[in-house]
Amino acid sequence: MARRGRLQTAHGPVETPAFMPVGTAATVKAMTPDAVRTTGAEVVLGNTYHLMLRPSAERVAALGGLHKFMNWPGPILTDSGGYQVMSLAQRRTLTEDGVTFRSHIDGAEYHLTPERSMEIQHLLDATITMALDECTKWPVEKDAAAESMHLSMRWAARSKVGFQERDGYALFGISQGSVFEDLREESCAALTEIGFDGYAVGGLAVGEGQTEMFRALDFTTPHLPADRPRYLMGVGRPGDIVGAVARGIDMFDCVLPTRSGRTGKAFTRAGELNIRNAKHADADIPIDDACACPTCQQFSRAYLNHLFKAEEILGPVLLTWHNLHYYQDLMRDIRAAIEAGTLEQLADLHPGIA
Amino acid sequence: MARRGRLQTAHGPVETPAFMPVGTAATVKAMTPDAVRTTGAEVVLGNTYHLMLRPSAERVAALGGLHKFMNWPGPILTDSGGYQVMSLAQRRTLTEDGVTFRSHIDGAEYHLTPERSMEIQHLLDATITMALDECTKWPVEKDAAAESMHLSMRWAARSKVGFQERDGYALFGISQGSVFEDLREESCAALTEIGFDGYAVGGLAVGEGQTEMFRALDFTTPHLPADRPRYLMGVGRPGDIVGAVARGIDMFDCVLPTRSGRTGKAFTRAGELNIRNAKHADADIPIDDACACPTCQQFSRAYLNHLFKAEEILGPVLLTWHNLHYYQDLMRDIRAAIEAGTLEQLADLHPGIA
Repeated sequence: MARRGRLQTAHGPVETPAFMPVGTAATVKAMTPDAVRTTGAEVVLGNTYHLMLRPSAERVAALGGLHKFMNWPGPILTDSGGYQVMSLAQRRTLTEDGVTFRSHIDGAEYHLTPERSMEIQHLLDATITMALDECTKWPVEKDAAAESMHLSMRWAARSKVGFQERDGYALFGISQGSVFEDLREESCAALTEIGFDGYAVGGLAVGEGQTEMFRALDFTTPHLPADRPRYLMGVGRPGDIVGAVARGIDMFDCVLPTRSGRTGKAFTRAGELNIRNAKHADADIPIDDACACPTCQQFSRAYLNHLFKAEEILGPVLLTWHNLHYYQDLMRDIRAAIEAGTLEQLADLHPGIA
Repeated sequence: MARRGRLQTAHGPVETPAFMPVGTAATVKAMTPDAVRTTGAEVVLGNTYHLMLRPSAERVAALGGLHKFMNWPGPILTDSGGYQVMSLAQRRTLTEDGVTFRSHIDGAEYHLTPERSMEIQHLLDATITMALDECTKWPVEKDAAAESMHLSMRWAARSKVGFQERDGYALFGISQGSVFEDLREESCAALTEIGFDGYAVGGLAVGEGQTEMFRALDFTTPHLPADRPRYLMGVGRPGDIVGAVARGIDMFDCVLPTRSGRTGKAFTRAGELNIRNAKHADADIPIDDACACPTCQQFSRAYLNHLFKAEEILGPVLLTWHNLHYYQDLMRDIRAAIEAGTLEQLADLHPGIA
């Protein structure tokens, strides 16, 4: 099921399978855009929810759009805001029309509808716009999952109408239905009927575990159009990504490499390590001796251990840089393995993948 | 009195007048060494006090010295620890031998003497080692200033004996005596008698104000050897630097550009600005349109205002980068003005210098 592809966009190509670093608030945390580029990342995420609150979509538009604002001329995919409204906003009220909520920053009231989400993402100048959906909770009864999925499909149809088509810009629909096979099949059919430029699998990686997630992908991706990119939202660890690629997924995003970089956790070919561990204090070796990133080329584990103990900003900067580089190395190796037909042997290069 | 010079060291040349970014704990805060280099800085500071506590001089030595540890192959000057022991350490006991104190990090007890300070700076592999001194408090009665200065002069003599000479490495003595002309003259004579590779003016910029500081320089620098570099410790704002250069100072260090960068204050040719100010939220212009730094070339005030409001790490990173670049631009302009004999017209290029 693994696929090797290339997205052509108004802001340049994206080789797939691709990992998209998360740049929630118009910045990939602790990284300059130049540094993000050196890792090989071709597309980054922005977030409708965060940006509509601060600095506001209208302000970003007045400043020339998100690409210019954050100095990332390449492709940008923006989340629709649905997931973050449910996880971050206060005093949410969900209706057929949309969701009313209060900002987690200053308590101000906002109303988000499929039409407003399309408008915001247009103002941001997102290369890839995501339809507004309700991210179904976990765990969830089947009746509730069905009701939530049906609402998301009606919002998907309204998103399609509200989206302003432009050459090289794309709108992705989002499959819901939790871990229920018939709901996922129904959701995929509804999205395909509406017709999108790409299809995301939402509502996974929410606590169900890798086994259940892979099982859901096994019965979901076959119902998505084969000639369109497939995006598994919010995933994941290296092993999750490799398993999802083998199940036909082309695109990923996850805060793990950036968030871990700020808390001292490093991804390596041999597995994960915590640089704060005392055993690294005298280790005059790089985080990963097979890694070509600036952190591994220039600094020892001992130095990084010191930076984290001293709470120096350079610690998160260097470890985030390494982690993003590791994730892009993984994607490069995955793409090469697909071309060579050797994806099943990928663990030889990345023995730490559980 | 302004001088244009060049220091030749084991780790490369330093054009003077020079500003040295402060890298207290083996990192110029929020900056990669590559980024520091792009600003034009040729020498950075390290700190005996901080590094002896964490990660310890012995560990840095075992890891190949401070240059390798922090990946700064250029010259490094290390503070002797005297100033920081007095300002940061707990339960200090000062004797003729040295100072006993407890670490501000974990309360562990340490003993610092002129000999131990020399040993630590040797273990760190400092290009320029500073003699251990007692930084006289401000304000201070003349009797106390004299007593403190005399102790520093005895410690200077012991520092000279404890210092291990090597080609391209230097030991600097530190003048004390607060704002008292005869004490400064006596201190300079004592240091010159001992004989150092360079001479620092310590105990200024401690609260006495610019007028008093310039007055002290007026009667201090003439008593320092003309053929050796002169270093004004802990100074300062752009106007302080220009005024001190005009009074014969060659080297400076200060946390202002880095600390200000982390709190949202930017130095520009037109003066200082606070990027958090609401008026910058829609300003699609760089911090300083005459600045060639990556921050000014790539990002607007509006974006930086957003980063600081969102408390994103990239805000301090980009503003520190700009501030250090501004300080190096100032030094480049000072050096060119000295060569051209136009130092008195420097305010034409930097009208914000008060």
